[in-house]
Amino acid sequence: MRAILIQAKRFGFTPVRQEIKEAELTVKGEKVDIGRSLVVFLAVEEDDDEAKAVLMASQVASDAKEIGENKIVIYPFVHLTEKPLEPSKSIELIKKVATTLRGEGFEVRRAPFGWTKGFYIEVMSHPLAERGVRIREPPLEVQPGARSRQDRLKLA
Amino acid sequence: MRAILIQAKRFGFTPVRQEIKEAELTVKGEKVDIGRSLVVFLAVEEDDDEAKAVLMASQVASDAKEIGENKIVIYPFVHLTEKPLEPSKSIELIKKVATTLRGEGFEVRRAPFGWTKGFYIEVMSHPLAERGVRIREPPLEVQPGARSRQDRLKLA
Repeated sequence: MRAILIQAKRFGFTPVRQEIKEAELTVKGEKVDIGRSLVVFLAVEEDDDEAKAVLMASQVASDAKEIGENKIVIYPFVHLTEKPLEPSKSIELIKKVATTLRGEGFEVRRAPFGWTKGFYIEVMSHPLAERGVRIREPPLEVQPGARSRQDRLKLA
Repeated sequence: MRAILIQAKRFGFTPVRQEIKEAELTVKGEKVDIGRSLVVFLAVEEDDDEAKAVLMASQVASDAKEIGENKIVIYPFVHLTEKPLEPSKSIELIKKVATTLRGEGFEVRRAPFGWTKGFYIEVMSHPLAERGVRIREPPLEVQPGARSRQDRLKLA
């Protein structure tokens, strides 16, 4: 499971085209404006499972607390991996990440899976605003380069 | 070498803080507004070399031609990998991608390496607007999920 976490001043998206038969129901053409939030661009990979979804949620929660952000957007973004899990299972694991975060008290919004969407984002301009996370078992890895620093090594 | 290619209606960035001693010279605080362009979020990985930089440029060029975009922005984005190459060598390979693309006639702008930057992007809302690319040798891989489709397999 791979993710790019971005703290956004503004974020929004519009579903424009259903791409796969497993796509989630949504309102085509609806402009969704979310505002300030932690946006989680998320790709589910072949060997992912519920345990990894919970680890991802834990990492996102930790990040959200560190930057003082209570609103989280889960945005499916398959482009982060060359080995995506099949769509129906991916949706289940994305939901697991979202429900785990909701269980920890965060306000969580999910962008619909399986749609081409336009989006806009304005990223906060501080060193904690961007982070890459990869969950695999073992071990839990947080990417070097986290927090925009190529010269920082393992965080976890 | 990993990249996320995004066709943007609007893109811009502002360098706000130098993060590493190898950082490129730039104007701190300068707002750079680029407008419509193909933005290449690029991470250089441990085993990358000039040959892979040329392959990446070739893939970007192919994408740019497919979507009819002549303006390309190379935006260093280490968060895509957990195994980044050291900064000084990364810069050289990023430059190689840029010069190769310039050699093919594209208008290429590079965002400075080694800086925390704020950025904004508005993504075109069509299925060809986003793509993930990973170059490794062998083989050349273009990610499934390319073109926003989880259900499409190898493109190359």
